[in-house]
Amino acid sequence: MRRVAIAASQTARFTKTSEKSIFELACEPCIDIVKSVRDIDAVLLSTCSTEQYSSTIVSEMLGIKPKISHRIDNLCNSGTNAIASAYSMIVAGLCDSALVIGAEKSDSKGNRLVWDITRGSFNFPVHWAAMFAKAHMGRFGTTEQQMAAVSVKNRKNAAKNPNALFRKPVSLEEVMSSRRIADPIKLLDCSLACDGASAVLLLSEERAKKVENPVWINGIGQQTNSASFAGAAENLSALETASRAAHDVYRMAGVRPSDIDVAEVHDAFTILEIMAYEDLGFAKKGEGGKYAEKNEIAVNPRGGILGCGHPIGATGVSQVSEIACQLAGTAGKRQVKDCRTGLVHNLAAAGSSATVMVLGVQK
Amino acid sequence: MRRVAIAASQTARFTKTSEKSIFELACEPCIDIVKSVRDIDAVLLSTCSTEQYSSTIVSEMLGIKPKISHRIDNLCNSGTNAIASAYSMIVAGLCDSALVIGAEKSDSKGNRLVWDITRGSFNFPVHWAAMFAKAHMGRFGTTEQQMAAVSVKNRKNAAKNPNALFRKPVSLEEVMSSRRIADPIKLLDCSLACDGASAVLLLSEERAKKVENPVWINGIGQQTNSASFAGAAENLSALETASRAAHDVYRMAGVRPSDIDVAEVHDAFTILEIMAYEDLGFAKKGEGGKYAEKNEIAVNPRGGILGCGHPIGATGVSQVSEIACQLAGTAGKRQVKDCRTGLVHNLAAAGSSATVMVLGVQK
Repeated sequence: MRRVAIAASQTARFTKTSEKSIFELACEPCIDIVKSVRDIDAVLLSTCSTEQYSSTIVSEMLGIKPKISHRIDNLCNSGTNAIASAYSMIVAGLCDSALVIGAEKSDSKGNRLVWDITRGSFNFPVHWAAMFAKAHMGRFGTTEQQMAAVSVKNRKNAAKNPNALFRKPVSLEEVMSSRRIADPIKLLDCSLACDGASAVLLLSEERAKKVENPVWINGIGQQTNSASFAGAAENLSALETASRAAHDVYRMAGVRPSDIDVAEVHDAFTILEIMAYEDLGFAKKGEGGKYAEKNEIAVNPRGGILGCGHPIGATGVSQVSEIACQLAGTAGKRQVKDCRTGLVHNLAAAGSSATVMVLGVQK
Repeated sequence: MRRVAIAASQTARFTKTSEKSIFELACEPCIDIVKSVRDIDAVLLSTCSTEQYSSTIVSEMLGIKPKISHRIDNLCNSGTNAIASAYSMIVAGLCDSALVIGAEKSDSKGNRLVWDITRGSFNFPVHWAAMFAKAHMGRFGTTEQQMAAVSVKNRKNAAKNPNALFRKPVSLEEVMSSRRIADPIKLLDCSLACDGASAVLLLSEERAKKVENPVWINGIGQQTNSASFAGAAENLSALETASRAAHDVYRMAGVRPSDIDVAEVHDAFTILEIMAYEDLGFAKKGEGGKYAEKNEIAVNPRGGILGCGHPIGATGVSQVSEIACQLAGTAGKRQVKDCRTGLVHNLAAAGSSATVMVLGVQK
């Protein structure tokens, strides 16, 4: 089967808001990529924006006439869904190159879960995050300090990332004393919706041979359990979607959790990163909190969602972009040393759906 | 490479409007398909609705827990884009089965092209249709009667289709004397936005072996030239997107225009069907008008968009559903005899993007 490589990736500076349209935002990370490559066969735009024909409008603005163009959305894991689609189209031979763009405005309609009547009036994501945190604390003794440690680590990483929304580190005390939003979740346990865009260029194996440092997509795992929170969370302290997706991706890529050198995990709330350690097999069940204090592998070197901000349709693309940079050795000040195998973990809506990807380089 | 088959297809009754939500509409054609099959690995929803997480909501309503779920939109060719994606995911081995659903409400935001500033205030599709018609008439002598003949044929076919919006045939005189909307386009040269949904089930080659009458996807061609009308139509009397997509699909499927036994072409306006004859190679350049009067191969046996109505996100799926039924020999009263190779031609926004597919059966 034909292999697929990430040949280029770019992330724009994430900002609280901006005057830019969703189309202008989407073009921003693509300018250099488009200049560097001939023939882009597919343009897939990941966004929860309600604009029509958006992928094709962005293609026109970029001066590209691709064979394939469409927009993809699935809330916060739209980005990895778009990359999985582009990967598939290249493997299937429908195209040899695909530009996947993620873009979102801070006021995106995807930020509130009004469609889920099982949530009643609790349609802000922080409400399910609070339930997850309470359950994990009650069942495994996870502490608020352990959650806070995730925020401290990711904000520290974000300080080295010129594109992150939050460039100022925070201390454990600052996280612990920040305003309580929905007990036990505090302000600094939460990510913030923002404006942002990211793009990756995927190439077929034949075309990637001419590229320096191609990063290979070695595995993709996906699982959808429900749309509503009531159906998503049979067990409030673990995400079956993520663990199933992880199981599939490890098998497809032929690697184990211990082979992962660097990862971007979906830390929209600190508790989600702790659950991710367990769901991905980095830590044993119930030991995610302790793992957060040890920090054995490099998780969220770009600063994660907590540090970078959460432009929801762009998040999955920016996660993949970061791991591609890390594996290609182009991550600058935040470069993780000697990494050969990386992982991306991207969730939507209380983990009701999940994508996990494994990328790798030959060294 | 792994082949992909259409194993089942269903189209719901198209109606001018309804009380149903986009989610209820989307479920309608899926009920029987979901009952008949175990393990649906992917659900792709094609719609221009602005609802969030819609594919995943529909999956939950159908009681499916797919690996992959997301929504795809690209205006009127969203449906064939979604089928091309599902095809790719199966070929790539990310899934073995995929349910592609197209659904739209009559008041969809995709019906007006407000994003295209090159259209000025002429943002209803009929304006570009009028320009195409004028250009074709001026250059090739195509007549209003020839365009009207397309409407008469498709409305006659729709009368045999229980799911069509328009079940009453129209005469040439009725088309010719119908109200002029934008000269030379008359009311009965136009399709109508409506509520509707359609679904197809795609299976991998291995799984399709157990199915009666599988219909194979033998080729997919796609081309995007622009989003705006100004960029779409260098030549107002032919669509380069469609002819390029056709060129690619014929090569991929290893067939010629003369091999096509049955086709669904994108007749949102009568002039588009005449242009399609030429772009697809059924007729020589400039002879589409005459071809409309001869009717050599079976085009739009379900009644096309003119007869069935145009629920934009559902249209491409319902076109493929029709050709799959025809080739499987399950089209009932409108069955085209002895058809083995079929084609689908699906456009968006003045033909600024196009998908052409070739399906086939072994007989």
